[in-house]
Amino acid sequence: MNADTSPQLKAVDGTSLDEVNNPTSPVVEFTDGPGLKLEGGQVLSPFKIAYQSYGELNADKSNAILVCHALTGDQHCANVHPITGKPGWWELLIGPGRPIDTNRFFVICPNIIGGCMGSSGPASIDPATGKAYGIDFPVVTIRDMVEAQVHLIDYFGIDQLFAVVGGSMGGMQVLEWAACYGDRVFAAVPIATAAWHSSQNIAFHEVGRQAVMADPDWCNGDYLREGKVPRRGLAVARMAAHITYLSEEALQQKFGRNFQDRDDRSFSFDADFQVESYLRYQGSTFVDRFDANSYLYITRAMDYFDLAARYDDILADAFRGTKTRFCVVSFTSDWLYPTRENKEIVQALNAVAANVSFVEIESDKGHDAFLVNEPEFFATVGGFIQAAAKRRGIAEASN
Amino acid sequence: MNADTSPQLKAVDGTSLDEVNNPTSPVVEFTDGPGLKLEGGQVLSPFKIAYQSYGELNADKSNAILVCHALTGDQHCANVHPITGKPGWWELLIGPGRPIDTNRFFVICPNIIGGCMGSSGPASIDPATGKAYGIDFPVVTIRDMVEAQVHLIDYFGIDQLFAVVGGSMGGMQVLEWAACYGDRVFAAVPIATAAWHSSQNIAFHEVGRQAVMADPDWCNGDYLREGKVPRRGLAVARMAAHITYLSEEALQQKFGRNFQDRDDRSFSFDADFQVESYLRYQGSTFVDRFDANSYLYITRAMDYFDLAARYDDILADAFRGTKTRFCVVSFTSDWLYPTRENKEIVQALNAVAANVSFVEIESDKGHDAFLVNEPEFFATVGGFIQAAAKRRGIAEASN
Repeated sequence: MNADTSPQLKAVDGTSLDEVNNPTSPVVEFTDGPGLKLEGGQVLSPFKIAYQSYGELNADKSNAILVCHALTGDQHCANVHPITGKPGWWELLIGPGRPIDTNRFFVICPNIIGGCMGSSGPASIDPATGKAYGIDFPVVTIRDMVEAQVHLIDYFGIDQLFAVVGGSMGGMQVLEWAACYGDRVFAAVPIATAAWHSSQNIAFHEVGRQAVMADPDWCNGDYLREGKVPRRGLAVARMAAHITYLSEEALQQKFGRNFQDRDDRSFSFDADFQVESYLRYQGSTFVDRFDANSYLYITRAMDYFDLAARYDDILADAFRGTKTRFCVVSFTSDWLYPTRENKEIVQALNAVAANVSFVEIESDKGHDAFLVNEPEFFATVGGFIQAAAKRRGIAEASN
Repeated sequence: MNADTSPQLKAVDGTSLDEVNNPTSPVVEFTDGPGLKLEGGQVLSPFKIAYQSYGELNADKSNAILVCHALTGDQHCANVHPITGKPGWWELLIGPGRPIDTNRFFVICPNIIGGCMGSSGPASIDPATGKAYGIDFPVVTIRDMVEAQVHLIDYFGIDQLFAVVGGSMGGMQVLEWAACYGDRVFAAVPIATAAWHSSQNIAFHEVGRQAVMADPDWCNGDYLREGKVPRRGLAVARMAAHITYLSEEALQQKFGRNFQDRDDRSFSFDADFQVESYLRYQGSTFVDRFDANSYLYITRAMDYFDLAARYDDILADAFRGTKTRFCVVSFTSDWLYPTRENKEIVQALNAVAANVSFVEIESDKGHDAFLVNEPEFFATVGGFIQAAAKRRGIAEASN
């Protein structure tokens, strides 16, 4: 495997894979046209979008649902992951007979711009040099991710998406879609998210970035060209972030002060406690599937997200005149995007008389509640989608 | 300066200092006797305790207050810090005419065992080898810190401390004193603390330790012998920890999404936001005054703290028969040691009919509230100390 072209990802069976430049997913490359004009002023051209899709687009192209992934997610929402071999991250929500029923809807899940699973990102080959971009890749924003998705939706010839759905950073993309392309979104489901990234959230992201950049193997961003990987720094970043995805209650219930494979303290710096062992595992497995520079770029995009800023700090103006129907969902134990930040979205939508429902789900699973088996959450999203589909006149699933 | 003997601390004026082995504080070296028998089974002998004291010990030695410091604190609670040049960390609480009035009380604040400001710790010279201990220093516990303090109190010829006061890890030491040496403690003030370290708190500490140990300049713990310092790793550890000392509200109010020296995003990985700049500063200044191995040892001691474990998980049994009077203090926005964990201490004391008062202070300053100007907090501690001193028959301050 050429160190120039890959973050040295390996499949579970030990086979080398290069999901960045030779992904197992379909890829659309946009070589003609004006390219992707970025908020930072640069133009990315050509650029690529890798995606997965499920179900069939109907004749009038009215049944498409765009699923937007979160920071460390990717397009493999409802199929086995090509690197980890694990089920799709939203396979409980999306699939035949699931709340988002792929017998009825055509679901598209693209990898974001800046990612590392086939869409253009810092680990991709820069056509101008034949080498990985590294930190020469332009800094992108949530808006840029959405603009790239617009190209993909145009490629499919879809005028209006039936729904845009996403949690966490995926929810930020949902909000951008609704704000910038409201006419092209019939229904929007922003989950466990916020219209702006809080000071504390920026702080945690900055810790993660500093951890990556402190690793000498980061090589000032040039590690792919140097044939290295900043594994230790990225693992520390992941460990810190992972704590914020859970809740104190969940950690206490799941791990408490339980020892790992021992009855008492070792009086050493081994992973005596289960929670230490768990975090170390989370850190070490993450680096097998994720590019360190992508981590920097995507956290930066989230930090930069402040939807109201473009509207003189009046969030409601982002949605003025919207015909999109919204379902906003938060979780009680989510301290990364607490309910009050989700409610700010609802309040802004109420202020412009939008069609919006809001549900706060009781859960002790923290921010990651949107990724785990929370029946009330699935019922909420499934119910909203079904009712909206009926209103949109989308045929029921045939079986 | 010899790399063998110092973590390369520098004073604000640029002068090299070696507070580890040649501290500006008084030091008591315990060379005779049985040494310090540690919970882990090892014996530390000889060992040293560096301390600061304020005020005068009265004739019957009844007016001594022991102040126990937190993870990154030290003995310089009420005097200018020899490295940073900053005021003592509790100078608002302790001093002439302060709530803990040094015109009335004799205040002793020792550096903990495992620390790096003159008491024996991993950066100290091991008399057996003439080199810094590094990670050959034995892993110590909160109990061990207290046992070392007992030696110091004996050295002063004090039979009973009038009070033991401390916040955070200092509060853990207060609880150990009360549990193990209740007869020697007239009054105890555990602040913003817990009787056991939660899973989430262990998790954050593990992130910090992994950040230090991921730095190649940590040299498997031997950096002092190698003439290096794991600055980057320790800075990342400090940044992560620092977020937990504040509250989301405080961060949002203080920094929000304000830019640092700019009007808009740089579209780079610079510290665009004030909160990033602040955290980077916290990280970089910390490494000038703190030993990385000490950070590992002290976080480990806190993780190991579980007072009830020695009493078959019945916390009340730690205090059964106690005559000590307690004042437990928590802060509303402290998410490191939330009020409910402080209340567990109160409930255990209530269960053995101890004399205990409990105050939850309204504050948005997070865990660090005990270190900042919170008038209600000072009034609470000052009022309790005065009433207890009257009961103990300690003379009023003469002026």
